[in-house]
Amino acid sequence: MPDAATVRVDLGPRSYDIVIGSDVSSTIGRRVADWTNARPEWRVEGGTALVVTDANVRAPHAEAVARSLSDAGRRVDLVELPPGEKSKDLAVIAGLYDRLVDLGADRRTLVVAVGGGVIGDAAGFAAATYARGLPFIQVPTTLLAQVDSSVGGKVGVNHPRGKNLIGAFHQPLGVFVDTATLDTLPDRDFRSGLAEVVKYGVILDADFFDWLEANADRIAARDPAALAHVVARSCRLKADVVERDEFERTGLRAVLNYGHTFGHAFEALAGYGELLHGEAVAIGMACASRLADRRRLIHAAATQRQISLLHAFGLPTTLPAAVRIDAEAALSSMRLDKKSVGGRLRFVLPTRIGHVETFADVPETDVRAVLKAFLRKAS
Amino acid sequence: MPDAATVRVDLGPRSYDIVIGSDVSSTIGRRVADWTNARPEWRVEGGTALVVTDANVRAPHAEAVARSLSDAGRRVDLVELPPGEKSKDLAVIAGLYDRLVDLGADRRTLVVAVGGGVIGDAAGFAAATYARGLPFIQVPTTLLAQVDSSVGGKVGVNHPRGKNLIGAFHQPLGVFVDTATLDTLPDRDFRSGLAEVVKYGVILDADFFDWLEANADRIAARDPAALAHVVARSCRLKADVVERDEFERTGLRAVLNYGHTFGHAFEALAGYGELLHGEAVAIGMACASRLADRRRLIHAAATQRQISLLHAFGLPTTLPAAVRIDAEAALSSMRLDKKSVGGRLRFVLPTRIGHVETFADVPETDVRAVLKAFLRKAS
Repeated sequence: MPDAATVRVDLGPRSYDIVIGSDVSSTIGRRVADWTNARPEWRVEGGTALVVTDANVRAPHAEAVARSLSDAGRRVDLVELPPGEKSKDLAVIAGLYDRLVDLGADRRTLVVAVGGGVIGDAAGFAAATYARGLPFIQVPTTLLAQVDSSVGGKVGVNHPRGKNLIGAFHQPLGVFVDTATLDTLPDRDFRSGLAEVVKYGVILDADFFDWLEANADRIAARDPAALAHVVARSCRLKADVVERDEFERTGLRAVLNYGHTFGHAFEALAGYGELLHGEAVAIGMACASRLADRRRLIHAAATQRQISLLHAFGLPTTLPAAVRIDAEAALSSMRLDKKSVGGRLRFVLPTRIGHVETFADVPETDVRAVLKAFLRKAS
Repeated sequence: MPDAATVRVDLGPRSYDIVIGSDVSSTIGRRVADWTNARPEWRVEGGTALVVTDANVRAPHAEAVARSLSDAGRRVDLVELPPGEKSKDLAVIAGLYDRLVDLGADRRTLVVAVGGGVIGDAAGFAAATYARGLPFIQVPTTLLAQVDSSVGGKVGVNHPRGKNLIGAFHQPLGVFVDTATLDTLPDRDFRSGLAEVVKYGVILDADFFDWLEANADRIAARDPAALAHVVARSCRLKADVVERDEFERTGLRAVLNYGHTFGHAFEALAGYGELLHGEAVAIGMACASRLADRRRLIHAAATQRQISLLHAFGLPTTLPAAVRIDAEAALSSMRLDKKSVGGRLRFVLPTRIGHVETFADVPETDVRAVLKAFLRKAS
């Protein structure tokens, strides 16, 4: 098999490997056989598989995965969902259930997601809820999915009135990250993924943040060795958090929301699609770090380093000129955030590069002041 | 609080109590407060609650539960689903999601099922999948739900082509069994629940089977003390199995399927609703024990004891005269069973009263012979 790095996610009986390399997709069939030998409770040897993908990556990635599974002796069906957020819908999930029934699926049937976060979330939710849980494999093909959404077991779909409101925790049997899929990723999507990478440095790892600064040019130019390190380190950092708070119960997992309370509000109010998720998070981190500055939690220089690194990756830290957002509307949206409790705002704020804390006591006057100064500057 | 027995289900971080007594429903508000103090990860104090019920038990049971929760300081919404299996449908679940959004549900919001197995399965699936899991309380009001479906964490809905095909494992925060709800349960439903009770004796506990034989008249007359023991012992026996195989992975949980491979086939082929679940299981146990006899695994007298006890509870052990089922159709239906692997039949068969084993090597000729003899006798 080709050279590959492995990140182990240690979740007791639900532990699994993230395999990172180039051309790993074509070895999926053999690797899955190895894994299932180690996990007899899934009993997936020799069964069927449903590969879920979209038109953007069907050829060549999803077809290579399907071929590898088929060569390993599985009967494989491939289903193509419409690209984009609208596939995260209960009606689409009902269609996946139908395909699984058609395939004669039983508890040995693998569900394999080949695509970005939308494909992983939708296919994963179908896997979580068919026959009370089918073995699930993630093959993320966008940088955002590789460093974030494919790690940690969150799957789900949208409700007309709330993003990701319907979902489950369903850990995969394994994750394959084929960094070769990044070669063809559109530039804006690639940069959007880097926002979450910067986030990991800020919240957990000052050395990684330093490394990102020192290697920004190589990363922006998609140097394969640099990207392999970016993905492996990001997955390791996220896995460390998920291992300590798998079901988002202790509050530890909340650190991953740095930049997201502001970001989600901007994303929703700009109209979904206007800002990519990573762009909204980049802008959200700039706001959150300024809020930390106003609360005298962090030096202004640390905020400036984040903004400079985001700019080096071609990411925005202010709203696009065409987007007008009112400070009060942003505040209302933030109060509806899924992580808020009883309508009270909670913020994850940095106290230095490499460390964040959760604050439930930030006065709304400070949030409003940061928003107003920022939105004036942005417009 | 009134006297109540407690069965502890030990599932590590997902452990919970089944509280059994009369008039426990009215103490729910206070008990839930006690539980949540012990489970800070659910953080449900002072939040909202959605009570899910049907027209059969809305008054007085669901309304008493809603009042108790309201008295304990919660904002409570009550939703009434149409009675019967047709409520186990994705469209009904989508309606529950809407009600949760209307209620402004967050992760502190309790979902409380007051009703039989259908209500528990549907409300539980909504709880399992809203915001990736809400705290869930079961208040089963039928004997079948009290001794079987409310224990073990299985929740779900039907697919047009498969019963319980869409679902999850979602353990409740607690279960309240108010045996007073059995006073008004229709006779046929009450007897149907007793089939699962007989099953526990056959598969796990010869002493309990002896006790059921000795106390059959008191039980059939719904003596409150006898029923409290029936429920507590059945829950304990099921909990013992669930504790060893929570996610139905090791095969241990399969012992609970005694009588169900035949029973599900009869239930499906008779047309759903023609046979109640417990009636189909009673007939299925008679068939399975005869198959064990034919395979020389058990004495004929042990089969006869089961049939006599089922008759003492007014349960059928042959198909109703109006139901005609073909042996080959029954075999085909059994091959589609969710627990079959690769279309191969697996049977849970008794080797004596109080002990069963799983057999994957039963020749179809023996199954066919038992079916033909039985179906001739039944017609």
